[in-house]
Amino acid sequence: MKKPIAALIFFTIISSLSTTFGQAFTNNSKEHYDKIADEIIRSALTEAKGYEWLKELCEIGPRLSGSENSLKAIYWAKEKMESLGFDSVWLQPVMVPHWERGGVENAEIVKSKSFDGKSLNITALGGSIGTSGDGITGHILEVKSFEELHSYGEKAKGKIIFFNRSFDNGLANTFAGYGGVVGQRVQGAVEAAKAGGIGAIVRSVTSKYDNVPHTGVMQYVESVNKVPSVSIGLIDADFLSRAVKNEPQIEVNIKLDCKTFTDAKSFNVIGEIRGSEFPDEVIVVGGHYDSWDKGCGAHDDGAPCLQTMEVLDLFKRLNIQPKRTIRCVFFINEENGTRGAETYGEYAMNSTEIHLAAIESDRGVFTPRGFTADTDSLTLSKLQGWIPVLKKSLIDWIEKGGSGVDVSRIKNAKGLFGFYPDNQRYMDLHHSDNDIFETVHPREMEMGSAAIAIFTYLLSEEGL
Amino acid sequence: MKKPIAALIFFTIISSLSTTFGQAFTNNSKEHYDKIADEIIRSALTEAKGYEWLKELCEIGPRLSGSENSLKAIYWAKEKMESLGFDSVWLQPVMVPHWERGGVENAEIVKSKSFDGKSLNITALGGSIGTSGDGITGHILEVKSFEELHSYGEKAKGKIIFFNRSFDNGLANTFAGYGGVVGQRVQGAVEAAKAGGIGAIVRSVTSKYDNVPHTGVMQYVESVNKVPSVSIGLIDADFLSRAVKNEPQIEVNIKLDCKTFTDAKSFNVIGEIRGSEFPDEVIVVGGHYDSWDKGCGAHDDGAPCLQTMEVLDLFKRLNIQPKRTIRCVFFINEENGTRGAETYGEYAMNSTEIHLAAIESDRGVFTPRGFTADTDSLTLSKLQGWIPVLKKSLIDWIEKGGSGVDVSRIKNAKGLFGFYPDNQRYMDLHHSDNDIFETVHPREMEMGSAAIAIFTYLLSEEGL
Repeated sequence: MKKPIAALIFFTIISSLSTTFGQAFTNNSKEHYDKIADEIIRSALTEAKGYEWLKELCEIGPRLSGSENSLKAIYWAKEKMESLGFDSVWLQPVMVPHWERGGVENAEIVKSKSFDGKSLNITALGGSIGTSGDGITGHILEVKSFEELHSYGEKAKGKIIFFNRSFDNGLANTFAGYGGVVGQRVQGAVEAAKAGGIGAIVRSVTSKYDNVPHTGVMQYVESVNKVPSVSIGLIDADFLSRAVKNEPQIEVNIKLDCKTFTDAKSFNVIGEIRGSEFPDEVIVVGGHYDSWDKGCGAHDDGAPCLQTMEVLDLFKRLNIQPKRTIRCVFFINEENGTRGAETYGEYAMNSTEIHLAAIESDRGVFTPRGFTADTDSLTLSKLQGWIPVLKKSLIDWIEKGGSGVDVSRIKNAKGLFGFYPDNQRYMDLHHSDNDIFETVHPREMEMGSAAIAIFTYLLSEEGL
Repeated sequence: MKKPIAALIFFTIISSLSTTFGQAFTNNSKEHYDKIADEIIRSALTEAKGYEWLKELCEIGPRLSGSENSLKAIYWAKEKMESLGFDSVWLQPVMVPHWERGGVENAEIVKSKSFDGKSLNITALGGSIGTSGDGITGHILEVKSFEELHSYGEKAKGKIIFFNRSFDNGLANTFAGYGGVVGQRVQGAVEAAKAGGIGAIVRSVTSKYDNVPHTGVMQYVESVNKVPSVSIGLIDADFLSRAVKNEPQIEVNIKLDCKTFTDAKSFNVIGEIRGSEFPDEVIVVGGHYDSWDKGCGAHDDGAPCLQTMEVLDLFKRLNIQPKRTIRCVFFINEENGTRGAETYGEYAMNSTEIHLAAIESDRGVFTPRGFTADTDSLTLSKLQGWIPVLKKSLIDWIEKGGSGVDVSRIKNAKGLFGFYPDNQRYMDLHHSDNDIFETVHPREMEMGSAAIAIFTYLLSEEGL
């Protein structure tokens, strides 16, 4: 036991000393980085260009993969990057799934003494099959888990399965709350069908108590019958739960005309500023450009994409010439396929370029808190020495953690990072009509642009 | 030079080792504190009682010192604390200044070719004298600083001085932005009068570009003539600036019937849970209960007060018996006098009790970030060892810094602390009609209640 403790003491002493004596930086003084950080923060906050772009982007509307709107937004981004004078801007072709919601998504209560004809606030989950003209009609079986569902055996047959497990609002991290219930959204239809059910109604995955349904991806598997799957607003979920308890005979009719089409042509949007000393070493900053077809995908993930575009624009505005190439990638199709990330990941693997690092912004645009890091411990320890500079942009920590769905596909990058802003309000609006421009605060968004830009600049100067 | 460096190395090693070997806590295990912290967070977030109380409090309206509303709110708080079963609840009498806005506050442009009669969005600054029936009318002299004003010499005579220096939105910390301009609000009238001006119009101190005027305290001095002082919304400030440039002959007429009355009787509201082991050692948690007479003083400082009341209620809900006495103090009259804090500070000084620590919440109710600490370095270092537990409630740091206007009057306390939430949105609403219930997010508020409760519990168990 003695050796590891001695090693730990030695390591602790050494890392304390190196921090104490300011050895965190090799290529420039801390004063230089402080000055650049202040300039980046000032420019981001006072010019608020990312926020202005977001207004334009939201006017186009939501950007579901394969939709006409998503193409409009892709061309808008390409033109914007060109107008900003990036060294190169290009579109990387990607074939994406193409699912459309269609014009009909209704649910109503039937065979009730008290509430006959009452409509319920539902929305099709992304990827669901539609129904025939009359829809599906069935009794409701409410469950809180797949285990509970399967314990009912034959009783589930012919029923619409109502997955009503609540989002746990008692956790500090709303992503943990999300993680605790998203399974019933993704696998609900398959589990319902396996139990003999004819459809699935899923309590919306949200931290906000309102009646807005939240969509999101659901999955089928080849071996199991496909049944329609919808989410329901929380007020109507609680109403339905009470109604079924009071009148077990009630049924619900669901009509959907959503449909999956053949794959559609789409693109990742890519722009870069070439590095002055190591042009073949690439630092990717990006997010996913597609959104669900609700609200305008402001926080998920329009504004975060624009933050990463603003990183490059901040460098240009401030005449910062990065040593390494800074590449902004707007990945298409994260929500229902990850095809854009796969395409870029393959490109990176086959390229002669060195992918040094990649930073993803896909947790909304709230006030910065930290960066999660998927890298080795020594590298992490080095990066933590940068916090005194990053703290100016309200980054208090860099900790081990997943980076992001898209950049994690760049498997040959040395360091993968995720921007981590505050998340208390994020799940209120995620995947719903609540996710609109008006919920974005300009200072919160721009402080995030600044934080990512400062981290990117440090990576570009100091390497990894 | 050698000795200090050696001492620094030694200190760094020792503090690293003590953190490494988990010696931060003396009286309970870290596991115990983690468990209590999780329970506090869950109870705060899921019951959201503080948020519900805020709704009730905001229905009473704003709580300017000396107003009838402030007394209604005081009795509401006393009854609420009693209903929560605190061990003692009492009112501590305080005589407070009594200023009323009255029913008239108008400003309009006169003698303009283009904008004659256009009204400007202004509001009297707190403490301003009113005007006679016809108001004051004068040419406008726009300045950005007192130095600029005094450089004009005779030119300022008979004019209304328009202090139009902008809030610096380029700083990460909005309190720093506030600090850079609040002087023109507080001293504007005195400086205007010293220069021979007949009144002051002050650009609202705010980070948000809208037309809502923000009030706040202004001061007169005995030796200088009193002139009326108002703030103006940002859109109208910019309009006025352009208008004066285009038509220097325009004048502005201001009518106010605000007035200072004789001091009024008011109270601090105090409730406590007595300590089980050291009842004479007191930990104060509190905020200021008065607000300006705009909006409902939701963030400033209604909700923060309620957070500190919730600390005691969380202890009761969870059957936590604190070792030391936890006392919630709602200080009256922070905004325009600090009389409540002075009264409590004198009481503390003359009491046989030991005031161990005091924590103020007066920076809005946004997501927690840290605590500022006005205490000695050794104590601070000890407290920083508690961060692994506090981090559960999103407290990333404890750093040297001012505590709060009210608790800083408890001069015999060993440690004075200020809760420090995110502040990106705070100055948008501070002292204005924007400061309403609807701008408070329940999770953000309740996470703050939890953070203060956990810190209070650690102080109560571990001492200082």
